[in-house]
Amino acid sequence: MTTKRIPVVERVLSANDQMAALNRARLDAAGVYAVNFIASPGAGKTSLVEQTVRGLSGRFRIAVIDGDIATSLDAERAEAAGAVSLQINTGGDCHLDAVMVQAGLEQLPLNDIDLLIVENVGNLICPANFRLGTHHTALIASIPEGADKPYKYPGTYRGVDALVVNKIDLLPYVPFDMDYFRRGVEALNPGVVTFPLSCRTGEGIAPWLDWVAAQVAGHKAKS
Amino acid sequence: MTTKRIPVVERVLSANDQMAALNRARLDAAGVYAVNFIASPGAGKTSLVEQTVRGLSGRFRIAVIDGDIATSLDAERAEAAGAVSLQINTGGDCHLDAVMVQAGLEQLPLNDIDLLIVENVGNLICPANFRLGTHHTALIASIPEGADKPYKYPGTYRGVDALVVNKIDLLPYVPFDMDYFRRGVEALNPGVVTFPLSCRTGEGIAPWLDWVAAQVAGHKAKS
Repeated sequence: MTTKRIPVVERVLSANDQMAALNRARLDAAGVYAVNFIASPGAGKTSLVEQTVRGLSGRFRIAVIDGDIATSLDAERAEAAGAVSLQINTGGDCHLDAVMVQAGLEQLPLNDIDLLIVENVGNLICPANFRLGTHHTALIASIPEGADKPYKYPGTYRGVDALVVNKIDLLPYVPFDMDYFRRGVEALNPGVVTFPLSCRTGEGIAPWLDWVAAQVAGHKAKS
Repeated sequence: MTTKRIPVVERVLSANDQMAALNRARLDAAGVYAVNFIASPGAGKTSLVEQTVRGLSGRFRIAVIDGDIATSLDAERAEAAGAVSLQINTGGDCHLDAVMVQAGLEQLPLNDIDLLIVENVGNLICPANFRLGTHHTALIASIPEGADKPYKYPGTYRGVDALVVNKIDLLPYVPFDMDYFRRGVEALNPGVVTFPLSCRTGEGIAPWLDWVAAQVAGHKAKS
C-alpha cells in the first residue's frame, strides 16, 4: 500500500526538531529534567502523573504540561496532586509538538522546577514522531490493551527510554500473555527499563519513583 | 494555543472526500453495506470483528479490511472467524484513508459480499477525519479506558453512528462512572445507538448483531 508523500511534513518535522533542541537547551540551562509520557487513550498517563507527583513532591519541585484535544481535566488532576500544572489544548491536533511545549515553557517558573512531566495527547502513533526537547520518553502501556501492541505499534515501542506496564491489578481478569508482550518489546527495544505497576493499587510504583528520582538527581549532577 | 496551518492537508482531505464518494458508489452498486470500526488501541475492534463474523456469517457473506501500521495479525483473526479478509499496512500512517480502502475494494469480490467491515488503525483521533465511503462508523469504547473519553475526544464521539462500549465484564474491577460517560456522549451525539457488551463473555452481543443485520437488510432493500 503506497503512502501519500507530503513534502511539507518533512519540513515541519525538521523545524520541530530545531525547536525541540532549543527547548532542551532551555531546560538544561534551568536544571530541569523533563520526561514525555506517551500512551493510548485511557492507559493511565494522568494516573501515573498523579502517583509520580504525590510520590516525589516532597523531594522535588514538579511541573506538569498536559496536552489534550479538549478539556483541562488532566491538568486539574495534576494540580490536585500537588504540581504546578499547565494545560495545552491542541484543538484537534493528535500530538504535542515542540512549539506547543515551548509556549508551555514560557509560562512555567523553570528556575523553581526540578522535574517536568509532559503528558502527551492520548495516541499511540503520532506523538512518537515529534520530539519535544524532553530528556526521556516513557511509554505507558496497559494490561487491558492486550499483549500484541509492541508488534502493532513498533515505531512507538522502538523509540522510548522507559516502559511502564500499568493496570497489572487487572491481570487476573483479562487474557494477557506477558511472555509474548516481553518478546515483542525486546525485539524492538532491547533492555528497555520496564515497570509493571498499578496506579490504582500502588503496586510496583516504588521502583518507578526510584527511576524518576535517579534521572532528576543525575541531571542535576551533570548541570 | 495556535495550531500550525498546513494548507496542503485541506486539499488532501478534499481529494479524500471525492475518493470516498467513489468508494460509496462502488459499494452501493455491488449491494454491499459497509461499516468503519474506529477505536483506541486495544479497545476490542478485532474482537468485535470476530464476534460479528461468527454471529452473522450464517446469514451474510462478510469481508473485512484490516488497517494496521504493521503485521497482519488482525486479518488473520478475521479470516479464522470466517470472513474474507484483507490486510492494509499503512507503514506508519495513523489512519486509513479512502485511497487505501479503494485499493482494498479492488481486491475483494464485492458482488459476492453483503457486509464489509473496515477495521481502522487503533487511534481515537486521526481516523475520524478521513471518510472512507462506508455507510456508517461505529466507535468501540472500552470500560478500562475510563469514562472521561467523550469529553477528551469530542470530535470522534460526535461523528459516529453507533457506539459500542466493550469490556463490560471489567466493570466490577475498574472505576467507571457510566452516568458521567453517558452524559458526555449525549451532549455530543444525542440519541446515538449504544451497545454495552463484552466480546470476551458474549454478554450484550445479540443486540449489536441485530443492529448490524438490520443495516445490511435495510441496505439490500434500498439497492
